[in-house]
Amino acid sequence: MKKIPRAISELSENFERLPGIGPKSAARLAFYLLNVPDVFTDRLANSISDLKKKIKICRQCFGVGEGELCEICSDEGRNGRQICVVERADEVMAIEALGGYSGLYHVLGGVINPLDHVGPDDLKIEELLVRIREKEAEEVILAMNPTIEGEATALYIRKKIEDRSSGKVKVTRIGSGLPMGAELGYADQVTLSKAFEGRREI
Amino acid sequence: MKKIPRAISELSENFERLPGIGPKSAARLAFYLLNVPDVFTDRLANSISDLKKKIKICRQCFGVGEGELCEICSDEGRNGRQICVVERADEVMAIEALGGYSGLYHVLGGVINPLDHVGPDDLKIEELLVRIREKEAEEVILAMNPTIEGEATALYIRKKIEDRSSGKVKVTRIGSGLPMGAELGYADQVTLSKAFEGRREI
Repeated sequence: MKKIPRAISELSENFERLPGIGPKSAARLAFYLLNVPDVFTDRLANSISDLKKKIKICRQCFGVGEGELCEICSDEGRNGRQICVVERADEVMAIEALGGYSGLYHVLGGVINPLDHVGPDDLKIEELLVRIREKEAEEVILAMNPTIEGEATALYIRKKIEDRSSGKVKVTRIGSGLPMGAELGYADQVTLSKAFEGRREI
Repeated sequence: MKKIPRAISELSENFERLPGIGPKSAARLAFYLLNVPDVFTDRLANSISDLKKKIKICRQCFGVGEGELCEICSDEGRNGRQICVVERADEVMAIEALGGYSGLYHVLGGVINPLDHVGPDDLKIEELLVRIREKEAEEVILAMNPTIEGEATALYIRKKIEDRSSGKVKVTRIGSGLPMGAELGYADQVTLSKAFEGRREI
């Protein structure tokens, strides 16, 4: 765009680098911020620059927290023998929001994806295996997303756990199938076949 | 969400106040920023806090610029007798991007909208009328959006210009009708009737 003042185009370009924000939304956000009170833009700028300073990665689960150990790992009321493995730290929050899980978590930092050059060593898999042994875990819930990479990573981790623990650890995978409210006729084939595989007696 | 560290929830709440960003996207953005290099978060934070410091509202057209007069108003190559009236400053950029308009602009700051308690005095209408007289404008192009409020504002301004200039100023309204590529059968009734009203000989 021509004649656009540099301070606006710079901000707009920075917004554009964020996921899910295209050039038009980025420009719209920049112009929106021009018209809000200074107190809000200051607060937004400060919360962005504070983020990295205040947030620490938990040394046990690799989730986010404000100390060496995150709030969940340092909560003695939780079941330390149950470990739910997720891809990213924000997924911990999604499961916590359900309120029904009282075990701990382990954040892998992604999934195995050869096309993106992400191998097992790029993830916190070895750390998970060590933790399972040291903490004498009883159940490991593999909650990676039901994608091809998520499934492959789940199978890889299950194999590794079996090799190291000779079957003493229960390894489970979160259910996959039709989401609630979905219509069978509109579901994709993989979801539908997963729903059949995962059928249960009622 | 439970257990979410404060620095993340604060940033997420701030993102949520931006237009077009819901709670889930806001949380996603906050977690995304956790994983990008510091140099990027610093740049984003700085560009937000710089915005208001560096951008000035042009004293003639109320568009954005970096000095007292914006780049467009201070460009002597442009036709100062032609004024295109828009609702918001970012719409100036959209028209500039076309590259075909060589007159000046006037940013109203919104449209007349009684439901939102926006009356003519809340907009830069009086400033427009004074400017038309002082600069001896020949044409005023009303480029407010083709919404009910935009149309009403256009009619209001046309009336005011006529009253003050006794018909010496040509007042035009941007065309409205079917957008290019649209299908007649899918167009809404108002658009379709506007397209008929605006029909031209070819």
